[in-house]
Amino acid sequence: MNPAPKTAAPRAALNPLNHIPAQILCAQDYEFLARQFIAGPSYAYIAGGSEHDITAEANLRAFAEGCVQPRLLCDVRDAHTRLNLAGLDLPHPLLLAPVAFQKLVHPAGELETARAAAAMQSVLAVSTLASQPLESVASVPGVYAWFQLYFQPDRAVTLDLLQRASAAGYRAILLTLDASIQVPSFRAHRAGFVMPEHCRPENLAGYPAVTASQPATGESRIFQGVMRHAPRWDDLAWLQAQTDLPIWVKGVLHPDDAVALRERGVSGLVVSNHGGRTLDGAPASLSVLPAIRKAEGDDYPVMLDSGIRSGMDVFKAIALGADAVMIGRLQVYALAVAGALGVAHMLKLLREELEICMAMSGCANLQAVRQTRLFPSPIE
Amino acid sequence: MNPAPKTAAPRAALNPLNHIPAQILCAQDYEFLARQFIAGPSYAYIAGGSEHDITAEANLRAFAEGCVQPRLLCDVRDAHTRLNLAGLDLPHPLLLAPVAFQKLVHPAGELETARAAAAMQSVLAVSTLASQPLESVASVPGVYAWFQLYFQPDRAVTLDLLQRASAAGYRAILLTLDASIQVPSFRAHRAGFVMPEHCRPENLAGYPAVTASQPATGESRIFQGVMRHAPRWDDLAWLQAQTDLPIWVKGVLHPDDAVALRERGVSGLVVSNHGGRTLDGAPASLSVLPAIRKAEGDDYPVMLDSGIRSGMDVFKAIALGADAVMIGRLQVYALAVAGALGVAHMLKLLREELEICMAMSGCANLQAVRQTRLFPSPIE
Amino acid sequence: MNPAPKTAAPRAALNPLNHIPAQILCAQDYEFLARQFIAGPSYAYIAGGSEHDITAEANLRAFAEGCVQPRLLCDVRDAHTRLNLAGLDLPHPLLLAPVAFQKLVHPAGELETARAAAAMQSVLAVSTLASQPLESVASVPGVYAWFQLYFQPDRAVTLDLLQRASAAGYRAILLTLDASIQVPSFRAHRAGFVMPEHCRPENLAGYPAVTASQPATGESRIFQGVMRHAPRWDDLAWLQAQTDLPIWVKGVLHPDDAVALRERGVSGLVVSNHGGRTLDGAPASLSVLPAIRKAEGDDYPVMLDSGIRSGMDVFKAIALGADAVMIGRLQVYALAVAGALGVAHMLKLLREELEICMAMSGCANLQAVRQTRLFPSPIE
Amino acid sequence: MNPAPKTAAPRAALNPLNHIPAQILCAQDYEFLARQFIAGPSYAYIAGGSEHDITAEANLRAFAEGCVQPRLLCDVRDAHTRLNLAGLDLPHPLLLAPVAFQKLVHPAGELETARAAAAMQSVLAVSTLASQPLESVASVPGVYAWFQLYFQPDRAVTLDLLQRASAAGYRAILLTLDASIQVPSFRAHRAGFVMPEHCRPENLAGYPAVTASQPATGESRIFQGVMRHAPRWDDLAWLQAQTDLPIWVKGVLHPDDAVALRERGVSGLVVSNHGGRTLDGAPASLSVLPAIRKAEGDDYPVMLDSGIRSGMDVFKAIALGADAVMIGRLQVYALAVAGALGVAHMLKLLREELEICMAMSGCANLQAVRQTRLFPSPIE
Repeated sequence: MNPAPKTAAPRAALNPLNHIPAQILCAQDYEFLARQFIAGPSYAYIAGGSEHDITAEANLRAFAEGCVQPRLLCDVRDAHTRLNLAGLDLPHPLLLAPVAFQKLVHPAGELETARAAAAMQSVLAVSTLASQPLESVASVPGVYAWFQLYFQPDRAVTLDLLQRASAAGYRAILLTLDASIQVPSFRAHRAGFVMPEHCRPENLAGYPAVTASQPATGESRIFQGVMRHAPRWDDLAWLQAQTDLPIWVKGVLHPDDAVALRERGVSGLVVSNHGGRTLDGAPASLSVLPAIRKAEGDDYPVMLDSGIRSGMDVFKAIALGADAVMIGRLQVYALAVAGALGVAHMLKLLREELEICMAMSGCANLQAVRQTRLFPSPIE
Repeated sequence: MNPAPKTAAPRAALNPLNHIPAQILCAQDYEFLARQFIAGPSYAYIAGGSEHDITAEANLRAFAEGCVQPRLLCDVRDAHTRLNLAGLDLPHPLLLAPVAFQKLVHPAGELETARAAAAMQSVLAVSTLASQPLESVASVPGVYAWFQLYFQPDRAVTLDLLQRASAAGYRAILLTLDASIQVPSFRAHRAGFVMPEHCRPENLAGYPAVTASQPATGESRIFQGVMRHAPRWDDLAWLQAQTDLPIWVKGVLHPDDAVALRERGVSGLVVSNHGGRTLDGAPASLSVLPAIRKAEGDDYPVMLDSGIRSGMDVFKAIALGADAVMIGRLQVYALAVAGALGVAHMLKLLREELEICMAMSGCANLQAVRQTRLFPSPIE
Repeated sequence: MNPAPKTAAPRAALNPLNHIPAQILCAQDYEFLARQFIAGPSYAYIAGGSEHDITAEANLRAFAEGCVQPRLLCDVRDAHTRLNLAGLDLPHPLLLAPVAFQKLVHPAGELETARAAAAMQSVLAVSTLASQPLESVASVPGVYAWFQLYFQPDRAVTLDLLQRASAAGYRAILLTLDASIQVPSFRAHRAGFVMPEHCRPENLAGYPAVTASQPATGESRIFQGVMRHAPRWDDLAWLQAQTDLPIWVKGVLHPDDAVALRERGVSGLVVSNHGGRTLDGAPASLSVLPAIRKAEGDDYPVMLDSGIRSGMDVFKAIALGADAVMIGRLQVYALAVAGALGVAHMLKLLREELEICMAMSGCANLQAVRQTRLFPSPIE
Repeated sequence: MNPAPKTAAPRAALNPLNHIPAQILCAQDYEFLARQFIAGPSYAYIAGGSEHDITAEANLRAFAEGCVQPRLLCDVRDAHTRLNLAGLDLPHPLLLAPVAFQKLVHPAGELETARAAAAMQSVLAVSTLASQPLESVASVPGVYAWFQLYFQPDRAVTLDLLQRASAAGYRAILLTLDASIQVPSFRAHRAGFVMPEHCRPENLAGYPAVTASQPATGESRIFQGVMRHAPRWDDLAWLQAQTDLPIWVKGVLHPDDAVALRERGVSGLVVSNHGGRTLDGAPASLSVLPAIRKAEGDDYPVMLDSGIRSGMDVFKAIALGADAVMIGRLQVYALAVAGALGVAHMLKLLREELEICMAMSGCANLQAVRQTRLFPSPIE
C-alpha cells in the first residue's frame, strides 16, 4: 500500500500507485492529485497551453456557461450512453485523445493507457509522437485504436507511417491539422521544462533526420520557412488516395473548414484547439461548436476536445452539438496517478457523472442529450 | 447569560443560547453567527451544496440581479403581508422548508423548529428524514404542519408514512422529487463530515431495511441501479389515489414539468434546486422562476426556495413570480444559535425586512409586490 | 503649519488643517486623506451606506460605465459652466447637498461649509438635522441657501421650521422624501459608532419630544408603526399651501414619481438614493437618471446626487440628463481635512475637472454636455 | 556579458545591454524586463497614463475581446506583411510612435531608436519633444522619419519647426491634436517622478520662452487660460498652407472628427488616446476604431496606437480596421533594455507574432487580415 499523502512535494521520480486512491471523488480530482505524481516542470508542460495560457483557460471557462435543467419523474430505467459513431458502435462517448510522450508521466507510457482503453471499451487515439512504438501499443489485448497522424516533411515518411498503422491494425487515421507551427508554452519555459531523454518519438526513430528549410534573405521565417512544410488541401487529397482507412480531422475551429472537410469526404471532425496548445488567443473549442454543428447538419460526426473535466462537461458538449468527446489532460493526470487503473477509473467516473446528468435531466440516451437546450442556451 | 464571543472556535458540543444574541442585526446574521454554534464538519455539511457548490453559489448570486426601485409618498398604513395560499390564509409568505436531521444542530431538533413555527404562524414542512418522529413534531401545540415525503423503494412503506402523517394531523403532503440520486458534497467530505449516531431518520426506524438493487453486469449503476427506485409519473398518480390531502411538489426547475404537474392536479409547486444539494450545475431557482410563473399563469400556487437570505430576497422572489417562499438554511442556522427563539426571531426579522422593502417601494400587499418590476427587470 | 503625515492613525480629536494639503491632486483625494482626519467609527458612519453598502457601492460603479469621447480642434475660448437652474443663475452646476451633523468632522460644522459655499457661489442645502441652528448658517455672509426639510410627525413643528427657514432668508425648500424608515449602516454599527453628545439636531431643540406611536398587537411595527408618520401626497399638498418658497424634492428614483411631482407643481427634483443610505438594494442614482429625464422632458429641472467623486462624474451625470449635481460625501471629507478652505478647494477642483472634460470633448457649455452621448452610450 | 538578473532592483543609472537578453520570449517580455533597467519613478512615468490610469488600462483590456479563429490547410507560402500606406511601400505595418524624451531610458535616446527603425525598415515618428535634435535623428543612416508636431503658442515657432523638419528630410508631418491640456499621471506623481535635467526638449531650445497667458478674474484657467493656445480648425488650415509634406493627424477618437479631417485633405489618421495619457476616462483606442473605419470607408489610411503588446494585438487592430499600427511603450521598454538592438528585436518579434497569427488563420496578406472577423466579432 502506498497512499499519496495530501501535502507531498512534487516527485522527481515517477511512482504511480497500483491502486485507486481513496481521495478521488470525481474525475477532475485526478487533475489535482496529479501534482503529487508529476515533477513540477513536467506538470507545467502538461497543464500549460501555448504562450500565456489564454486559450487553455478559455476552454475551461466556456464550460461554466449554460446550466443543465433537471427534469422530474422521468423513466430512465432503459437509459444508456451507447452511440453509433460513423458506423462504429460504442458503449459511451468518451474517447482517449492522442497525447504525445506519455512516458513523461508513467514508465510504461502509452501501453498503460491502451490497457485502460481496452478495459473501458474506449477508442484510443495513438499519437505520431508516442513514446512507445505504434505497433506495441496496438498489440495490447482488446485495444481498439486510431492512429493520430502528423504530416511529415517527407511524404514518403508520412506514407510509411500510414502503412505501418494500417498493418498494425489501427482502424482509422486521426489527422491533426492545427499544429503547423510549434508555439511554446511560457509556463513550461519558466518552469525550466525540457523533454527528458527517455521520452522520444519512437515512431519516427527510423527515419532520416529532416533538414529544416531556411528562408532566403528577406523572406519570412514563418511564411517561407516553417509554413513551407505545412499541410495544404492537396496533401489531404494525396493522403485520402493512399489509404482505405477512414480519415478524421482534428483541430477544426471554423465552420467553413468544417464544411470543406465534409465535402471532401473526411469521415468526421474533432472540434479542438489542441487543448489551448497551438494559437494562444484562439476561441474555446466549446464556443465554436454550435456554429460548426449547425454548418454540418445533425448527422455528420463531430467530436469535441479541449476543456472536458467532468461528466457534466460531456453533457454540455453533446447538448451543444458533439456526438462524442476526446479526453486529453485528464487521461495524462490519471495515468500519472495510477497507470491503467487510474485512466480506467477516470473514464468510469466521467461516464457515471454523465449518467447522473442524463438521469436527472430525463435523457434516456445521447440523442436526447443532443436535443436538450442548456439554460440559458448559448445558441439561439 | 451566555454571550457568544465573536472569535470563538467552532464548538463540538451543541450549546444553543436561550436568548437572542445582541449582535444579530438582520436575518442573515444568523448565517454568520452559526459558525460559532455548529461544529466545522457539520457546518460544511449544512452550508455546502452538492459537489463543487456551483449551484449553491448561483442561488445566492441570482438575488444580486435586479434592484428594488423605491417609491415616494405612498400610503401603506393599511399594508400587510397576508396571503391566501391555495385556500390557506397566512399572515406572511415565509414557510419553513423541510430540513432533515435537525438534531445535528440542536438537541431537541425539529421540536424547537415546530415551536417557532407555531409562534410565528408559519407553515412547517417536516422532513421524512426528521430526527424526531413526525408524530412528536405534529403534537407541538399550535403547529400547522405539512409532511415532506420522499417516495420509499417499497410502496407499502410510502403508504404507511402517508397514513401516519394524515393521522398525526399534517395538512398537506410536500412531495420532493428532485433527489433521486444522492450527490455528495465535496465540501462536507473534505471537512470529514459523517452524520452523528444520534441523528437518525426516526420516521423510518420501524420499516425493514431495503436491499439496494444491484445492476447486472454491463448495466449502469445509475440507470439500472439507483434510478430503478426513482419515482415516475405513475407513482405520482398512485400517490394521488391514496390520499385526500393536498399534494404539493418540491424541486421543480422546468416549465414543462410545472405545466404537467398542474395538469395532473397537484396543488402547488416549490421551485427549488434543493438549496444546490442535488445536481451541481443546475440553474439557480430564482433564474427559472419567471418562466415557470409564465407557464403556470398568475393564479396557480408557486413557491420558491433556495438562496433566500433577506427580506429583500423574499421581495424579489415574489416580484419574479412566487406567491411565497420556503426558508431552509437560515432556519437551521437560527436553530443552532438560539433554538425556537432563534428561528422565530429570524422569521420576524425576515418579515420586517420584507415590510421595509414593501413600505419603501409603495407596495401595500403581496399582490402589489407581484406586479412590481425589478430594475433592470430580468424578465422581459 | 501642521502637515498631515501619510501614515497617521485616525485621530480621535478633530484637528482640521488651516491650509490646503499639498498631496491633494484631485477632488477625490479628499476622500482618501479624510481617513486621517476623522475617527474610525465616524468615518464608517459617513462612508457607509445602509445595511451592506450594496447601493452605496453601486453608486460608484455606475459612473465607471460609459466613456467621454474626446473631440479635436474645438474652439472653447468662450466656454463656461454657467447655468440657469429654475430661474436661478449659477456659475457652475455644483451644489452642496444637505448633510446632517457636520460638527462630527469639524468644530464649526455647517458654518464652515457655508463659508465655502459663499466663496464658491455654490448653493448650500442646510439639513433639518444640522448641528448648527439654521439661522446661524443662513447668516454667514454671502451664502445662498436652501433649507432641507424632513416632515416632522407634528405638522405644527414642520410649519414652524418652514417659517423659520423663510424668515432666515432661505431661498427654497428641499424636501427629502426617501427616508421614511431609518435603515442602519452595518458598517457603522460594527465600527461601534454612536453619534457624539455634541452633535445634536439644533433646529429641533426647542420642540416637544414626540412619542413614537406603538402599533397594536398583531399590527406591523413598519406599516402601522413607523409608516404612520411617513409623508404622503396630501402632506405635500399641505406643504405647498404653507409657503411661497419654491419646493424641490430629493430622493426620486422612479419616473412615475418624477412625473407626478412635476404635475403637482414641484419646482425640481434631485434624483438620489441618499448616497445609498436608505433602502439598501435600491438602484444607483445614475442608473435611473436617463429614464427620469426622458419622462420629464428636456426642460424640467433635474439634479443628481449620490456617487459623484470627480468632474468627469459630473460630466457624465449631465450627459445622462442632469442639469446640476449635489455633492455630499466629498463635502464632508473636505470639511474634515481643511474646513471652509477644503470645501472651497474641493469645489474648485471638481469644477476644473469638469472644465477639462468639456474642453477635451469640445463642449462650450453645459447644454452641449447635455447633448453629448457617452461611449458606449448606456441610453438607447 | 552582462546578464540581467531576474530579481535586480530598479537601476538608478541607465545601463542598457549590448545584446539581446535570453529571457525574452515575446515582444511583451520587454515590458516586464524593463523594470530592471528603468528607475522606479521613471518607470511609473512611462507606464502610467493620466490621472488614475483608467484609459491606459482600458487600452489593454480592449485587446482581450475577440478571438482569432484558426483556419486549416491554407497555402501561405507566398504570404507577406507588405502594405502600401498612402503611397508608401512598407515591409510591415509596425511604425514607431513618437515618444518624447528618450534619453530618460537610454543615454543616446532617439538616436538608438532611429538606428533600430533603419534596420527594420520601420517608419520612425520623431517627437517635437525629442531629447535629441530633430536634425541629428534624421541623419541616422537609412532612417525614414516623420516629424511629430505639436502646435506651438507662437505660429512663427511652429513654422520654423516645420521648415527645419522639411530641411532635415522628414517625409511627413504627424500632427498630434489630443494633448491641448497636460493631465498629470497620479502614478508618476506618487512615485516622485521629476523629469531629469538631461532630458530637455532639444528642438525647442533656441526659441524664446513663452509667457503663459493668465485668465482674467472670473475667467476659467482652463477655457480662457490653457485652451486659448489650443489648436483649432483654422490652425490646421494654416498649417496645410505652409507645407507640401503630407500631414497626418494623431489622436482621433470620434468618427465625426475623422470625417472632417479626411474632408479637409489630411493624408491619414492615427486613432489614439495617447496611450491613455490625455483625458483619463476616454475610450480605448481599439474600441472606437471600427466606427472610425466605417465612417472613413475602406481606403482611407487609418492607423491605431495605444495598447499594442503583441503581434496578435496587431492582427486584431488590422482586423478591426487599421492599416497599420504605431508602437509606443514597447519601443521605450526595448530601448531601455538593449538600445537599438532591443528595439529592432522587439519589432522583429512583433512581426513574427503577427505572421504566426496570419499563417494560422490563413491570411496571406494584410488585406486578408482586414477582411477577417474576430470571434465573436465586436463589430456588427
